[in-house]
Amino acid sequence: MKRKETLVSAPPQTCPTGAMVIGAEPVIGTGEEVRSADPRTGAAIGPAYPAASVEQVERACALAAQAFPVFRATTAERRAEFLECIADLLDERREALVERAHLETALPRPRLTGEVGRTSGQLRLFAAELRAGTWQGARIDPARPGGAPLPRPDIRQRRIPLGPVAVFGASNFPLAFSTAGGDTASALAAGCPVVVKAHPAHLGTAELAARAIADAAAETGMPEGVFSQLVGSGTEIGARLVSDPRIRAVGFTGSRGGGLAIAAAAAARPVPIPVYAEMSSINPVLLLPAALGSRGAELGDAFAGSLTLGAGQFCTNPGLVLAVDGPGLDAFTRAAADAVATNAGATMLTTGIADHYATAGDTLTARDGVDELARGSRPGDAAGGCARLLTVAGARFVADPKLQAEVFGATSLLVRCADTTELTAAVCALEGQLTATVHADEADYPLAAKLLPLLEERAGRILFDGWPTGVEVGHAMVHGGPFPATTDPRSTSVGTLAIERFLRPVAYQDVPAGLLPAEVRDDNPVGVWRRLDGEPGRDALAADSAD
Amino acid sequence: MKRKETLVSAPPQTCPTGAMVIGAEPVIGTGEEVRSADPRTGAAIGPAYPAASVEQVERACALAAQAFPVFRATTAERRAEFLECIADLLDERREALVERAHLETALPRPRLTGEVGRTSGQLRLFAAELRAGTWQGARIDPARPGGAPLPRPDIRQRRIPLGPVAVFGASNFPLAFSTAGGDTASALAAGCPVVVKAHPAHLGTAELAARAIADAAAETGMPEGVFSQLVGSGTEIGARLVSDPRIRAVGFTGSRGGGLAIAAAAAARPVPIPVYAEMSSINPVLLLPAALGSRGAELGDAFAGSLTLGAGQFCTNPGLVLAVDGPGLDAFTRAAADAVATNAGATMLTTGIADHYATAGDTLTARDGVDELARGSRPGDAAGGCARLLTVAGARFVADPKLQAEVFGATSLLVRCADTTELTAAVCALEGQLTATVHADEADYPLAAKLLPLLEERAGRILFDGWPTGVEVGHAMVHGGPFPATTDPRSTSVGTLAIERFLRPVAYQDVPAGLLPAEVRDDNPVGVWRRLDGEPGRDALAADSAD
Repeated sequence: MKRKETLVSAPPQTCPTGAMVIGAEPVIGTGEEVRSADPRTGAAIGPAYPAASVEQVERACALAAQAFPVFRATTAERRAEFLECIADLLDERREALVERAHLETALPRPRLTGEVGRTSGQLRLFAAELRAGTWQGARIDPARPGGAPLPRPDIRQRRIPLGPVAVFGASNFPLAFSTAGGDTASALAAGCPVVVKAHPAHLGTAELAARAIADAAAETGMPEGVFSQLVGSGTEIGARLVSDPRIRAVGFTGSRGGGLAIAAAAAARPVPIPVYAEMSSINPVLLLPAALGSRGAELGDAFAGSLTLGAGQFCTNPGLVLAVDGPGLDAFTRAAADAVATNAGATMLTTGIADHYATAGDTLTARDGVDELARGSRPGDAAGGCARLLTVAGARFVADPKLQAEVFGATSLLVRCADTTELTAAVCALEGQLTATVHADEADYPLAAKLLPLLEERAGRILFDGWPTGVEVGHAMVHGGPFPATTDPRSTSVGTLAIERFLRPVAYQDVPAGLLPAEVRDDNPVGVWRRLDGEPGRDALAADSAD
Repeated sequence: MKRKETLVSAPPQTCPTGAMVIGAEPVIGTGEEVRSADPRTGAAIGPAYPAASVEQVERACALAAQAFPVFRATTAERRAEFLECIADLLDERREALVERAHLETALPRPRLTGEVGRTSGQLRLFAAELRAGTWQGARIDPARPGGAPLPRPDIRQRRIPLGPVAVFGASNFPLAFSTAGGDTASALAAGCPVVVKAHPAHLGTAELAARAIADAAAETGMPEGVFSQLVGSGTEIGARLVSDPRIRAVGFTGSRGGGLAIAAAAAARPVPIPVYAEMSSINPVLLLPAALGSRGAELGDAFAGSLTLGAGQFCTNPGLVLAVDGPGLDAFTRAAADAVATNAGATMLTTGIADHYATAGDTLTARDGVDELARGSRPGDAAGGCARLLTVAGARFVADPKLQAEVFGATSLLVRCADTTELTAAVCALEGQLTATVHADEADYPLAAKLLPLLEERAGRILFDGWPTGVEVGHAMVHGGPFPATTDPRSTSVGTLAIERFLRPVAYQDVPAGLLPAEVRDDNPVGVWRRLDGEPGRDALAADSAD
């Protein structure tokens, strides 16, 4: 009984014990055991995580529903303190998180150290956003007792949280897009309790992160049930969570198949709920002629660096390059192919991902007209993967939608277009994307100006002269985009706008002053931004507007 | 051939001709003929409207897709002028619109005159909103070249329109929620071309409104295809529209069955799209004990007035009253029952609606424990309907979800609760609603404060000491709410917030200054509100932030 020994012999906040979190407590599941594996060897890692039973899923949802009215009534300031406390605990426990995540994901320690900082920084950004007082979306249309043709009542608006949110974390960011990642941070900021399904590839990391959240909830006096984390094998626990009537929204980062299954389950409920699934994107990179001509080789090198970063396991990995044929593209291709051919490869996140990566790359290579330009080395690890650069002619790309299938990993398809007309046609053929990148010299700007509206319609973020890997966490970021990049392009899963996914507006008509929520009271006691008859400001209402 | 005679003999802008609008042109359908009917007699009204063929639906969608890039590139000012021109033409043609709508809907002329004003006022409000410069959601996070741990790129965000929108108007507001209604106004404001499916109950009114939009589009130089209106018999044209890949969002007002069918069709597309369906709501009215005690009879009278307004055919009709038993409720009940019993009844919108109304009322009355307290007269018209007041005990209401079925028309169910605990249980049992109304004296405020959060979770608008019929068009209004009131509670179909339904955010990273959209340029040439590093304002960026 190794699990029980672990539970006794080490402080739970830095050493995984095999426990979930339900309400305020660490709880051992009573279902089938699940274990993460070392991607280098494929060997299972202890402790075992018994999966949640049906009753345990029920209990997590019941506690979340029970916590909701209490949690959503907390002030923005108190929720900010909760988020900051989580951030502090994650930073304090950085070393343990990094070590465990390194064991479970084979991601390098410096990258994981940075990811802890990104995760705590993200929580602090949402704390700041809570205090900034814009997310409430407050609006006041004061009464016009003598209005024509009819007197106008007093109408005020604010946003309230949707209710408990189910979060499915990603394999590729065991911290920043997982248990304590952006979906959890934005849902908690909005005032929604969260029930996470721990990612099976990094159960220990998930447990340590969940303990930090539970400890912070206790320390800042948040209600029991504000956060739970469940373990499940296969898709059953997830399906139960999405179908539970107490769950009111879902955040998901993962595969297209997984996202679509969740969206279908959510739509089939008696009361459908919104699903924010960030799924698949091949992140086209456009190399415009002058840029290619002036720095083709340099771009080829830099592209290979972005392609192979983190074993290519970024949602924003550049899986597609669109460029016009010519000497500049030849230089790009030589440099990129050389870099890929000499790439040492990397250990991928799981053996399952590595197997799928190899198969998906072979499938893409086997399509009509596709050639492999270069292939790097594959490490001997269980989950080893090699970089691959493929190519196809523009006309084939436009004709074959299957060439847009995402290959999750360091494989990219270079599309050689005959001219800018074919390049434009290739852009028009694109599915929805998280990002679209343009490399352009000034001489390319007239062409870029024509392409920009086409890219806007197909991507959530457009970037110039950089690489899509690397998603800044800020106010202006959009990490989202048209289907199939996400199931809902009206928001983002990174950045402060993400909080809006979990809110909805409510109007208050002629509600007595003493019963109004603070955000829309005449005196604006919480100092939020409001639209008064449409005009933004944060002043109190003049006394003659008071009722 | 009456239709052709009409087409030749009268100016099309004031006399229905049987035409649809496809692109800029009046076009006669080539399908089966559809006619509206006089609800007083049930007799068909000319002219006949041949339905759109498959090719005509295709052509409307193709023109909308073609218009989209041109239309969305127009400035907010130009779109505002377009909306104002539509408003002016509707006002100019008010008399013809009112006469035709009166013939087709039997709604009284004064009400329809007011509705023209509401429709043109709504268009002008969106014109003002376009100029206010907040809807763009602009955000700028300037670059931090020396940022730690990494330099931060320059990231800017704005919202862009989703693409062509399909609009399905409502039967009960032939102007304000139909061809030129709130869905069309907000979609056009956002920069989305619109394809309307004309409501079969008021085809002539729809044609006149569509002509006003088409004429305004021509007058203000909008691209062909920015607006089309199709006629269809049955559900086929609607299903084709929702399934067309060029349609990117749907606005719908109507029945739960209709809304769910459209939502299912939209979710089944290869690329799913958002559906904003405003469907069914019974708009609970809570009568708290002190208010009942002090003014029970007065409330009963006023309630009956709201219930029977417009033959009860408002989305916000008070179909449910929740109150605690006692002498105050007795007084309320007597007054309400008297008013209902002596009500003369009214002609409903269509014979189909009247038939359905009678059946649905009978079904509700037949539920276990339900008694009919009063029934008014039914006019001899083909579409005549009578007011009905039913009652049931609180415990039965909580136990029987079928008692929450919407009866579209002047039927309401009074739920007599034994005490405030049962009243609270009844509130907890409620499905999602457009509105929830509370009548409360000051002595009721402690109870109201407890009920308010429960109502917030179940309704889009909460109003005190008034009646839900009457939806103010302004900035703070929410006409929406949790399922089944709508398919998407995150927005509203009335008020300026409605524009957000048709927008999505896009981020621009390190995009060269000359290629940036105006809203996010350093100098803020269009003077929009922006969040600069999170802080709202409308200043230009300081020169040292410029790239």
